[in-house]
Amino acid sequence: MRVISDPERLDRMFFALADVHRRAMLDRLSRGPASVSELAGPLGIALPSAVKHLAVLEHGGFVVSRKVGRVRTYAVEQKALDAMEAWISKRKVQLSAQFDRLDVYLKGK
Amino acid sequence: MRVISDPERLDRMFFALADVHRRAMLDRLSRGPASVSELAGPLGIALPSAVKHLAVLEHGGFVVSRKVGRVRTYAVEQKALDAMEAWISKRKVQLSAQFDRLDVYLKGK
Repeated sequence: MRVISDPERLDRMFFALADVHRRAMLDRLSRGPASVSELAGPLGIALPSAVKHLAVLEHGGFVVSRKVGRVRTYAVEQKALDAMEAWISKRKVQLSAQFDRLDVYLKGK
Repeated sequence: MRVISDPERLDRMFFALADVHRRAMLDRLSRGPASVSELAGPLGIALPSAVKHLAVLEHGGFVVSRKVGRVRTYAVEQKALDAMEAWISKRKVQLSAQFDRLDVYLKGK
């Protein structure tokens, strides 16, 4: 997988998930597409507030929207989840290598 | 692995990584512990700025610090990386199940 290195894109991705309502929306959408009102309802937030949160998620690359007739439907875009997972995974690999080196060092003493 | 569900803790975690300097610091620390000046130097930022970024990372649970003599050294705390990875992974599993259901539905048509 291509590792995303564009700093501003990564900023937008991590920022988008730093909010409990946006995480709840992404959680809901990961179980199937939904409209703004279907997303706002269970969270007890007003539609304009939901629209703003969805814009942040869209800006972060996590969701895409499509308008059919008068209803706009949102769906998860998996690439951003993959990119974020890849970023974290790379740091875990580095951390693990660091522990391995320490282990070799201590056993060599 | 225990999945973190405390919303404020998750807010702090995702917010901590929504900055290019903080991600660079975590990247550096995942290759081994370092002092504030070792972290600030390569980024070309002032020490007080680096200290503030490290406080945000510490608040997010990503780093721990230890003072030996006059030098404070920072190291990665792996638990937060694990927790964030688990959060993302759970949404990917849900998304994958959603695609599987769609596939079954389409094949059944």
